[in-house]
Amino acid sequence: MEFTGAHILSINQFERADIERIFAVADSMEPYALRRKVTRVLEGAILGNMFFEPSTRTRVSFGAAFNLLGGEVRETTGFESSAIAKGESLYDTARVLSGYSDVICMRHPMSGSVAEFAEASRVPVLNGGDGSNEHPTQALLDLYTIRQELFDKGRNIDGLRIAMIGDLKHGRTVHSLCKLLCLFNNIQVTLVSPNELAMPENVVDMLREAGHEVIISDDLTRGISSVDIAYSTRIQEERFSSKDEADLYRGRFRLNQSIYTKFCEPNTVIMHPLPRDSREDANELDNDLNQNPNLAIFRQADNGVLVRMALFALVLDVVDQVDKYSRDVNWYSGR
Amino acid sequence: MEFTGAHILSINQFERADIERIFAVADSMEPYALRRKVTRVLEGAILGNMFFEPSTRTRVSFGAAFNLLGGEVRETTGFESSAIAKGESLYDTARVLSGYSDVICMRHPMSGSVAEFAEASRVPVLNGGDGSNEHPTQALLDLYTIRQELFDKGRNIDGLRIAMIGDLKHGRTVHSLCKLLCLFNNIQVTLVSPNELAMPENVVDMLREAGHEVIISDDLTRGISSVDIAYSTRIQEERFSSKDEADLYRGRFRLNQSIYTKFCEPNTVIMHPLPRDSREDANELDNDLNQNPNLAIFRQADNGVLVRMALFALVLDVVDQVDKYSRDVNWYSGR
Amino acid sequence: MEFTGAHILSINQFERADIERIFAVADSMEPYALRRKVTRVLEGAILGNMFFEPSTRTRVSFGAAFNLLGGEVRETTGFESSAIAKGESLYDTARVLSGYSDVICMRHPMSGSVAEFAEASRVPVLNGGDGSNEHPTQALLDLYTIRQELFDKGRNIDGLRIAMIGDLKHGRTVHSLCKLLCLFNNIQVTLVSPNELAMPENVVDMLREAGHEVIISDDLTRGISSVDIAYSTRIQEERFSSKDEADLYRGRFRLNQSIYTKFCEPNTVIMHPLPRDSREDANELDNDLNQNPNLAIFRQADNGVLVRMALFALVLDVVDQVDKYSRDVNWYSGR
Repeated sequence: MEFTGAHILSINQFERADIERIFAVADSMEPYALRRKVTRVLEGAILGNMFFEPSTRTRVSFGAAFNLLGGEVRETTGFESSAIAKGESLYDTARVLSGYSDVICMRHPMSGSVAEFAEASRVPVLNGGDGSNEHPTQALLDLYTIRQELFDKGRNIDGLRIAMIGDLKHGRTVHSLCKLLCLFNNIQVTLVSPNELAMPENVVDMLREAGHEVIISDDLTRGISSVDIAYSTRIQEERFSSKDEADLYRGRFRLNQSIYTKFCEPNTVIMHPLPRDSREDANELDNDLNQNPNLAIFRQADNGVLVRMALFALVLDVVDQVDKYSRDVNWYSGR
Repeated sequence: MEFTGAHILSINQFERADIERIFAVADSMEPYALRRKVTRVLEGAILGNMFFEPSTRTRVSFGAAFNLLGGEVRETTGFESSAIAKGESLYDTARVLSGYSDVICMRHPMSGSVAEFAEASRVPVLNGGDGSNEHPTQALLDLYTIRQELFDKGRNIDGLRIAMIGDLKHGRTVHSLCKLLCLFNNIQVTLVSPNELAMPENVVDMLREAGHEVIISDDLTRGISSVDIAYSTRIQEERFSSKDEADLYRGRFRLNQSIYTKFCEPNTVIMHPLPRDSREDANELDNDLNQNPNLAIFRQADNGVLVRMALFALVLDVVDQVDKYSRDVNWYSGR
Repeated sequence: MEFTGAHILSINQFERADIERIFAVADSMEPYALRRKVTRVLEGAILGNMFFEPSTRTRVSFGAAFNLLGGEVRETTGFESSAIAKGESLYDTARVLSGYSDVICMRHPMSGSVAEFAEASRVPVLNGGDGSNEHPTQALLDLYTIRQELFDKGRNIDGLRIAMIGDLKHGRTVHSLCKLLCLFNNIQVTLVSPNELAMPENVVDMLREAGHEVIISDDLTRGISSVDIAYSTRIQEERFSSKDEADLYRGRFRLNQSIYTKFCEPNTVIMHPLPRDSREDANELDNDLNQNPNLAIFRQADNGVLVRMALFALVLDVVDQVDKYSRDVNWYSGR
């Protein structure tokens, strides 16, 4: 795809070459994210960071990514009750807000709203999550993390063996990740969930059509025994009809250090889209894993900044200029 | 008036020469707002963008305007329940907050509050709307838009023919616009509203005392038949005692493409202070006008950035330095 | 203490030499806070300004301090209902958020939470107030103000005579200030409060163990008659079991100009941690003091910016570079 000026709305936009392009650019952002260097390439540019639904992590990650490229951020958080109550259409909102910035990141509770917004926008729009529909930067940072973690072991995404664990029915992130995996070759996907929270049929079919091996299981220890990546997810309580119903499943697939040691291959990487539920009755990833160097969940969150920097640089066409506007960091950085 | 260090509280402050000065400076801001150039003239300066009442558009417009001049924005949104509950006076709030910034933009639900705040402030204050009282930058951007739209047709504000349509009783923007028009010559104002939502007498008198021709009508098609500008407004439901009462008037004066084609002179410009109510039962400006090049409502919103940049540059006395601190834009801009 | 990379969590961290170091750096920030000069020393750095409890003044003061050093601010305001509801631990929040910035300022309603957060953070954390526990920058700016006000009179903190007035039981700021005073010599502290709102025993003991003279009184006029500083505080209504109970004490120790003239030594400095309660039934510091040049309450708030700039410069180790990245201010500044 042509990135310059493009909207980033869905992972369906991407072919394998696009993913590889994004990841190569993300790699080049590392010195800036790690504060070894500062770049001012987007000095004077404005990101409209429009979060019509709260999400501290995603919002701050997008904003920090833009700041790290030298740009400014104008922000909205929370639902736009006033203008909606006055009957403003998404078209009008988009026409107006896109006059204030060079690029927009938008999160909105309504499925499809970000694409509708983008159609009327005069500047590139990045989907920061539209209801249960899409959250493409999460899928990209997940896949980028897999690539990084495997790379250190001399491997790559082709040939990956991954287990996805937990609420596979409601987890938007695992659906998207499966879609992206279809762009790669020879992958073994083990799906570990209670029967009632199984991965939707269409996702399973899609994986198989891509030539991947799919193993369906409700046994955690067997599921994680021969994989490169164990991708755990949270029971999405808010999608159940009641807390009691969610409680039926909560804590069913807990991974902790002793299970890890006993059942996983050495150096199996643990991922999670976060937040992980650390309450006693859930605790899908126990805190005793915090010192395990293969717990990649915070590297995963960090990678979100790299991927978002990459997307900004691509749609605003400054990839080749980032280093030109760079200098060394002159303050203390513990990283 | 002397702009340097001044508060911008009310359109009553302005004489015609002041308006012309603001508009000339706004013109000079266009290359920056259109991202042909970047200026860093206010690099290091801080705007305190204090919105004690929500207003995404106005707030972001002020913030973006300040960013476009190179400055930083510290922001507050929503009502300050805590300090008020603790009995803090507006005087104290102003003394404290004005210590944190170089200029303040303030919106507050209470009529007169911004002027009271400004009196105690140690930095210039721009009124971003104080209840039903004043919203001077809206009036300025409306008039600036009229001037721009007429200019392209070889005309200017003197001699203007304008129709104002809708809820003329509650619409703060049309009241302010009429006041500003009194600084100009030979204007014909057609006021189209239901009888019960007529323009207040004192505004009509003021227009007539300024030598302008005022036509009062409740017939949309006749009202818009011989004007340069058709300025439509929303039924301000929130000012009625009930939704039912507002419903009596909603949708009474709908302008759409077929009415436009049938009754308007060619190239009649359509304006609206936004948000326009696009719900079916209101729809004062139909979506089928969106492709009409004379629909100026989004140019109007864009002009808000120019006018606010101009005011910041004037009160902080950097008009003559804006270009000195400029350079070309180095990223993609679709504008 | 070693400031580079340190967390600033509690005033207990500081020895006298640390306080003196912070204050010397704060002094050097004055030209920037007064907009005589601009520095860009932290250009490219990001402050995560995480206010999980609202506090406009403290939040904006921290943000402005960081902007004045040239850095960017990513911000969160209000309680993080979503992630907490999803069971995220403070450890995880800290690991994730500290990936987005170079330094974090955090306010949180829960006592001890900021220290817990800091332990997991990968960047320095400044405590912006954790419930009833600590608010170290407030204590520092109070003491800095005392030093500044005395300095103009050829005096210093050693030998200070101070009266603390009002709700000494609940006032977190006076407790912390007393702790800091224990690092200095030969201080006379007069504690003026209703018996029921007296300074806690342990604070009184601590002062006496430090060799200071403590006078306990419930007579305002006698208490303020021979002091350098009269430090007034608000009845902390929110800490009482009912408004009625708070009303018993509200307005008991009002200071106004005529009392000041009659009972205080000339040039006695008036301080208050703000907000002051200006409602008629409270009014601990009357508005008729606003013209009194010894009313230091707004200088006190201004000093918060200096102290916070100093802490940022110290923990990020740029004290010696601030001037190197400086230039003159090119816009109007009424200061």
